[in-house]
Amino acid sequence: MKQVITFGEIMMRLSPPLNYRLVQTNNLEVNYGGGDANVAASVARLGLPAAHVTCFPDNELGYAAAQSFQRYGVSMEHTVFRGDRLGLYFLEVGASMRASKIVYDRFDSAFAKLQPAWFDWSNILSNGRWLHWTGITPAISASAAQACKEAIQEARRRGITVSADVNYRRNLWQYGKKAQDVMPELVAGCDVVVCTEGDAEDLFGITPRVDAANRFVSMAEQLMQRFPQIKQVIATERETLSASHNRLKGVLFNGTDYIETPAYDIVPIVDRIGGGDAFIGGFIYGSLTYPTEQEALTFGVAASALKHTVHGDVNLMTAAEVEPVMQGNTSGRLLR
Amino acid sequence: MKQVITFGEIMMRLSPPLNYRLVQTNNLEVNYGGGDANVAASVARLGLPAAHVTCFPDNELGYAAAQSFQRYGVSMEHTVFRGDRLGLYFLEVGASMRASKIVYDRFDSAFAKLQPAWFDWSNILSNGRWLHWTGITPAISASAAQACKEAIQEARRRGITVSADVNYRRNLWQYGKKAQDVMPELVAGCDVVVCTEGDAEDLFGITPRVDAANRFVSMAEQLMQRFPQIKQVIATERETLSASHNRLKGVLFNGTDYIETPAYDIVPIVDRIGGGDAFIGGFIYGSLTYPTEQEALTFGVAASALKHTVHGDVNLMTAAEVEPVMQGNTSGRLLR
Amino acid sequence: MKQVITFGEIMMRLSPPLNYRLVQTNNLEVNYGGGDANVAASVARLGLPAAHVTCFPDNELGYAAAQSFQRYGVSMEHTVFRGDRLGLYFLEVGASMRASKIVYDRFDSAFAKLQPAWFDWSNILSNGRWLHWTGITPAISASAAQACKEAIQEARRRGITVSADVNYRRNLWQYGKKAQDVMPELVAGCDVVVCTEGDAEDLFGITPRVDAANRFVSMAEQLMQRFPQIKQVIATERETLSASHNRLKGVLFNGTDYIETPAYDIVPIVDRIGGGDAFIGGFIYGSLTYPTEQEALTFGVAASALKHTVHGDVNLMTAAEVEPVMQGNTSGRLLR
Amino acid sequence: MKQVITFGEIMMRLSPPLNYRLVQTNNLEVNYGGGDANVAASVARLGLPAAHVTCFPDNELGYAAAQSFQRYGVSMEHTVFRGDRLGLYFLEVGASMRASKIVYDRFDSAFAKLQPAWFDWSNILSNGRWLHWTGITPAISASAAQACKEAIQEARRRGITVSADVNYRRNLWQYGKKAQDVMPELVAGCDVVVCTEGDAEDLFGITPRVDAANRFVSMAEQLMQRFPQIKQVIATERETLSASHNRLKGVLFNGTDYIETPAYDIVPIVDRIGGGDAFIGGFIYGSLTYPTEQEALTFGVAASALKHTVHGDVNLMTAAEVEPVMQGNTSGRLLR
Amino acid sequence: MKQVITFGEIMMRLSPPLNYRLVQTNNLEVNYGGGDANVAASVARLGLPAAHVTCFPDNELGYAAAQSFQRYGVSMEHTVFRGDRLGLYFLEVGASMRASKIVYDRFDSAFAKLQPAWFDWSNILSNGRWLHWTGITPAISASAAQACKEAIQEARRRGITVSADVNYRRNLWQYGKKAQDVMPELVAGCDVVVCTEGDAEDLFGITPRVDAANRFVSMAEQLMQRFPQIKQVIATERETLSASHNRLKGVLFNGTDYIETPAYDIVPIVDRIGGGDAFIGGFIYGSLTYPTEQEALTFGVAASALKHTVHGDVNLMTAAEVEPVMQGNTSGRLLR
Amino acid sequence: MKQVITFGEIMMRLSPPLNYRLVQTNNLEVNYGGGDANVAASVARLGLPAAHVTCFPDNELGYAAAQSFQRYGVSMEHTVFRGDRLGLYFLEVGASMRASKIVYDRFDSAFAKLQPAWFDWSNILSNGRWLHWTGITPAISASAAQACKEAIQEARRRGITVSADVNYRRNLWQYGKKAQDVMPELVAGCDVVVCTEGDAEDLFGITPRVDAANRFVSMAEQLMQRFPQIKQVIATERETLSASHNRLKGVLFNGTDYIETPAYDIVPIVDRIGGGDAFIGGFIYGSLTYPTEQEALTFGVAASALKHTVHGDVNLMTAAEVEPVMQGNTSGRLLR
Repeated sequence: MKQVITFGEIMMRLSPPLNYRLVQTNNLEVNYGGGDANVAASVARLGLPAAHVTCFPDNELGYAAAQSFQRYGVSMEHTVFRGDRLGLYFLEVGASMRASKIVYDRFDSAFAKLQPAWFDWSNILSNGRWLHWTGITPAISASAAQACKEAIQEARRRGITVSADVNYRRNLWQYGKKAQDVMPELVAGCDVVVCTEGDAEDLFGITPRVDAANRFVSMAEQLMQRFPQIKQVIATERETLSASHNRLKGVLFNGTDYIETPAYDIVPIVDRIGGGDAFIGGFIYGSLTYPTEQEALTFGVAASALKHTVHGDVNLMTAAEVEPVMQGNTSGRLLR
Repeated sequence: MKQVITFGEIMMRLSPPLNYRLVQTNNLEVNYGGGDANVAASVARLGLPAAHVTCFPDNELGYAAAQSFQRYGVSMEHTVFRGDRLGLYFLEVGASMRASKIVYDRFDSAFAKLQPAWFDWSNILSNGRWLHWTGITPAISASAAQACKEAIQEARRRGITVSADVNYRRNLWQYGKKAQDVMPELVAGCDVVVCTEGDAEDLFGITPRVDAANRFVSMAEQLMQRFPQIKQVIATERETLSASHNRLKGVLFNGTDYIETPAYDIVPIVDRIGGGDAFIGGFIYGSLTYPTEQEALTFGVAASALKHTVHGDVNLMTAAEVEPVMQGNTSGRLLR
Repeated sequence: MKQVITFGEIMMRLSPPLNYRLVQTNNLEVNYGGGDANVAASVARLGLPAAHVTCFPDNELGYAAAQSFQRYGVSMEHTVFRGDRLGLYFLEVGASMRASKIVYDRFDSAFAKLQPAWFDWSNILSNGRWLHWTGITPAISASAAQACKEAIQEARRRGITVSADVNYRRNLWQYGKKAQDVMPELVAGCDVVVCTEGDAEDLFGITPRVDAANRFVSMAEQLMQRFPQIKQVIATERETLSASHNRLKGVLFNGTDYIETPAYDIVPIVDRIGGGDAFIGGFIYGSLTYPTEQEALTFGVAASALKHTVHGDVNLMTAAEVEPVMQGNTSGRLLR
Repeated sequence: MKQVITFGEIMMRLSPPLNYRLVQTNNLEVNYGGGDANVAASVARLGLPAAHVTCFPDNELGYAAAQSFQRYGVSMEHTVFRGDRLGLYFLEVGASMRASKIVYDRFDSAFAKLQPAWFDWSNILSNGRWLHWTGITPAISASAAQACKEAIQEARRRGITVSADVNYRRNLWQYGKKAQDVMPELVAGCDVVVCTEGDAEDLFGITPRVDAANRFVSMAEQLMQRFPQIKQVIATERETLSASHNRLKGVLFNGTDYIETPAYDIVPIVDRIGGGDAFIGGFIYGSLTYPTEQEALTFGVAASALKHTVHGDVNLMTAAEVEPVMQGNTSGRLLR
Repeated sequence: MKQVITFGEIMMRLSPPLNYRLVQTNNLEVNYGGGDANVAASVARLGLPAAHVTCFPDNELGYAAAQSFQRYGVSMEHTVFRGDRLGLYFLEVGASMRASKIVYDRFDSAFAKLQPAWFDWSNILSNGRWLHWTGITPAISASAAQACKEAIQEARRRGITVSADVNYRRNLWQYGKKAQDVMPELVAGCDVVVCTEGDAEDLFGITPRVDAANRFVSMAEQLMQRFPQIKQVIATERETLSASHNRLKGVLFNGTDYIETPAYDIVPIVDRIGGGDAFIGGFIYGSLTYPTEQEALTFGVAASALKHTVHGDVNLMTAAEVEPVMQGNTSGRLLR
Repeated sequence: MKQVITFGEIMMRLSPPLNYRLVQTNNLEVNYGGGDANVAASVARLGLPAAHVTCFPDNELGYAAAQSFQRYGVSMEHTVFRGDRLGLYFLEVGASMRASKIVYDRFDSAFAKLQPAWFDWSNILSNGRWLHWTGITPAISASAAQACKEAIQEARRRGITVSADVNYRRNLWQYGKKAQDVMPELVAGCDVVVCTEGDAEDLFGITPRVDAANRFVSMAEQLMQRFPQIKQVIATERETLSASHNRLKGVLFNGTDYIETPAYDIVPIVDRIGGGDAFIGGFIYGSLTYPTEQEALTFGVAASALKHTVHGDVNLMTAAEVEPVMQGNTSGRLLR
């Protein structure tokens, strides 16, 4: 079967155990993750072939990062090992009213310095059925943005479904271009877009109409008008009651219908990082597996909810484990 | 003082730390437990003499398992060290809507292959005041069922109170006999039976009368009619709000009166395994210590609630620690 | 800038990881803390100069304890290294209805056996702007009480603000004097007093008037009448829903106005020890930084709430981290 | 490039940390390994494509085991997920005069119960350049022996090099056939055989001639006479000074020449398990990479020596790390 | 079978992991041990019934200490739970030229404050075959010395073998009596005495004769002359090459013959604490099991050597594990 | 007393536990260290006032690094918190013939981007008695080299002793200047220089005379001729037998006399990083404390040998602990 293929940076995440702070511990737990790679890993664990395309330094850190995703069944055969450093970030995990906190150290990574020519998209995508990318990739460097564009173009040529999590992070855009200038061309090539109202406003100047009955639908309509290739706009709506307690639901607009899922109560949260990526991984899996958009969307949100109960960036749930939660069984009764 | 004596298999439990999954960790925590042995350990820690009777392989794993219970003050002097392997199971601990999950690997254990003749019940029970067993033991093998029967018969001869947790697990019955054929003879010898409505239906075809005011009472009445030796039917009623939040109360029918306890809210759950065994251990202790059934039952449920806040299969609470909770003090205020 | 100076014993705290009990673990986590030293550490981490004055045995344990506070930026330059042993205590961390439990082993510590003459308060306080002590110090030994008295007197001479957490612990007073005899003279020298209604009754025989609209105010008024130096009486009011869930607010009476803060819901509690000290540390910082008592008090309670989400006795939050919570942002939303 | 393909059982290894014994720890470290799979992993990490063929239970343990080897770059695409249990063993690590000690629990594993028909060797080996197996596989069950035979036959048909580590373990042969009856037919199909003098005597009744100048050569000559397909007989000679200190050299006879390597002093030993497999993996890599048998053999021994300094069954050294040691640089000088 | 009975204090030992120092770690490993209790545990694990008599505080620390020895099969039924604190010590483990270092915190322990009347030696020893004590016990307090004396007297009355490890530690004798005044009366009641030349000189003023061919024999002869009850004087001779490398042999004089064992090279040392106690435990076991003194002594030294490879104070080796080392097999070859 | 002051970068070191490799672990241990800061920490722990001057990013990582040294008693009051990232490196610890391996990730650190003007050397050194720097500092960036030069000049002006560890690392010099151009001017200002023959040749083109009786002396003579301010040239001579076993001695030439120390055998090595810095810290302490150069040098080497037995970059030995080793007591006998 052909692969779901993702492209983007994978970072090493270093976090104190439990709720310890960096100033008080000498012990860090390592995870490797990236907004797009997490989607590939999620899809692979759910049971569909997946590959991730990235660039790592040619050293033990690069090998460790690649092997971490290989472990979860993601094909890393297209990895380019060149450059100096692995991007990394430090995470302190909060609780109750204390927010989790990230210190990034990702500039000048091997990925940021990749050359577009290192990636032969025609070959890579020859085995693809879906391409997913996030707004973080074009934010990292001009060459990353260029590689992303080439991937999308090749996918379009081949009629491969393209999805994007637009995921606007202002701080990342530091190489001289603005997200507002770069993103439209990339998003224009997408069939599925994950986009919140905030992202839509920041990136595309799109705001829901004042009189909109449903603000998300209003935003999505405008987005689809601007980018006619888009067939689905999706998002999660997250209610953040505390660092330990969130409520999550999924929304989708397909140009005609608005669909939403029940809200899932998540308490306690074990690890919130990668929750959005698990949603997308679940949605892609659901779209390729279930007949209805409602099922795909609910599968995505159930997968995301479950991700919050798992350590690490990657959703380690199988399809058989997501299904009962998708069907509303959230009692967590012991399985013998 | 004479002992509370239990009989059954003890397994090694292997679980990833915290909420890690097996595919992502190289670290497993070991606990030893068994539905009956946990009762003995509970009773011993509460302060009454207790012994457990079992069979272990004659190797380091068997020694470790025996020593684990010896540590908690359970006499293991009747342990038979023979056979090849220790039964074991792997536990992934869930959270929120993610259920905890068990993978068993217990077939062909030393206990399953025991010979009834290895156990001299007359000698063993000469020091007994109470015998407890669970429905897991006769499910394991014909010889385990036979040994269990002999123990019950000897206890009856000696006038020792016999209790059983009928605990029906369909998957376990694989040696060619049905629970429905084996259990009645064993339960017939019991004074106290822990039995849910589901168990009663599955094992004995007993269902509450349609018009029953109290379904539990209706079931218990029929059970006591069928097995006249039974003097008390007890159970816990567990409301599973999530893997991290349960609500628990105890119920008892003694042929005349129905007694129930207040419900205890348990959030967060530290370790749910052994919660039922802690209830029984607490109830046995309570029955031997307190004048009223209400106290015995409430002590049992308070003990069980507290067990959920302790790691491992065994309830490590002393009587002095259970008492305030039994009396309704569930504020958890720091004790200096 | 001049220092906030505290005086008192620092103990080694030994606790099993997570919710393990002492009988089941071979692993203890070490923290160093003391009711007054925690205040100094809190103030230092918030960004103001702080020093702690204490006495340690001249061995590796004393060095480790001193270095632990040095690490958090507390000046330990006045530490006296003399005597035999470091006071210590063992802590089992509860959950839900199970209370956390402390076993103290602090008698005959180096601090208990200090000589008042070892501390040259004139020199020590020459660099001070605030002196804080707790009712634990005069409880430990006659000489500790004497040293405390000398410190207060010197602070008064120098016009340095003096605060006390009266913190009455009956079990501690074992050297032949009663708290009721010792404390009044010491409290008489204080500008700010942390005192609950229970403490006021136990120590000073003060009870709120029967007809009092606000019991705390009534108690505080009487306290200020008795000890005219006092300008502010403060306290936290803690609602203990369970060992994992508390609700906290702060109250203050300044002779004229009663001020209170919103209540902060704390769930789950990561580590409750030092929560009161964090409140005082935050209040001192707030008093020295903010123009209004309301802000100082709210800052203190926000700091205390956050402390409950941090492992160890010491509040490791910076002022920038407390501020949003003080302003009501308790959503715990991930900070990138 | 075509793959080095191995076939055999992978077990979960559970070992207490450091030199702890099973009776004193509640903590086990997990590794997955097997005599043949370790060779594949070794080859993959050295830089050549490798695949392992095996059978796992279709549960979290099987997934974890498969993913563990996937992580190291071994293709697990031919894994069959069927059956009930994963074989496992417990390892206590010795030191000085205390031997490391293994307790096996591997009977009735999914691998033991495999059906030969589950493996389509024609397809599997179509991508192979080398097939390796060990004497453990035919010892496990008749069906495993049959599958092994079919693999060898197919490899012969395709002209793929076949190597075997005859590795005789008396205790394993429990399914009714003797190694002496089963092994000859399998060894007859091999080009390279790892065989000690003890194995040769036990399995084939071959003993060095009394007057032999070199006992290994004498044994190897007879072995090659008996099995004319064999082109190389190799072995390591291990001097066991203590559990913490071994000395290792490699020997080879190719029908004409006897080759040996320098002896490598290994002190301290970090983990001895898999040392022999690392030798074979290194020798296969060396044979496929270096022009001379001397280099291949020395590479193999250097790889094995380095394996002893790495935790786990698998040799995690790259070719670039083995090369200096192969060239005699054993000073272990810090690499910046 | 009757018990080997020991009497003395058990302390909690707290040590940083690996070679960490106290000032740099927040993690301590707990072991419980005592010079005499270690002997009982050693004997129990070797396979003979053993009991230890001691006094613990009636709190979680006392329970944990008692349960730790119960786990290893030592009967703790005579434990008295009274008093305030558990003695403890901190251990930093050295390596190479860095010595391991102990900080004691054992004064005023529950054991030090025991009342002799709490121990009914007639009852306790009614089940005894051997009584062992160490010179540490009478050093702790006058009442401990008195209890020790009463135990010896009762053992003499019953014809039970008495052994003592005189083990002189100057720093411990702080209650107003000198070892030189107390010990002779106690040693006079012993059949077997563990005594080095240094101890003999310090305690009894006995020095080997200047012209002695064998200094140990000369010392032992004088000791036996002074205390005619003594039948055997034994000791280990330890060559301390470094903190990681010792060499050990055993010596014995029985009034007629001098016996010594081969020297055992121990490198690396895993944990040196309890090495002497393991020797005594092994010697007692050997004396009760083997026909010759040579065997008993060699068993003792082999047991001691093995103890150095095991973490914790207690020798966790079974008789079957000591035997090969006793017979000279120190190669540490892997046992499958 | 005035301070020993050091200047340079502090990095976060991340290393897998024990001998694990990065590709196989999810757990990293954190230490903070730097060639010069380690000297300050060493001096502080030995008992003399010390301060370190550096630049950290203004985030949790910078605070943690600063606090780590504060903990060991190093004054960090001159730390500048500015810039983006903390330099870091990953360390895999080898054993036997496997070398330890470092992956650096230190470019563009906050320290590399410091502005010389941020450091007011006149103020900083007003409290100094000794200034120490290493050749790593001027290698990092032009501005770091400039700051280093200004510090040396100010020290010269104030008559403060200046020492340098020239420590040439070719890979580090990447900002456009060569070490050979930058270092001479800096070394010219030094009184004490740590320099190996290799460094002397690489940096200054100085080679021992062909006919030199003592190559070190010949090199040192030429060095002192070139830089007349130098009064002592010192070095350690390290024999690397394996990653686990080194032999170390110290050498010194003072223009007249050649002094050397006995060689110290270090086996096993616990942590080799910082061994050279411990030598310098010990030598500085020795020079300020002992009357003779022989004592200072031997103290330095003994300190360095002991450092190898301690985890982390920093030598955690007190003067009282170094002294016996300095005097030749390397038996590592247990200290009670």
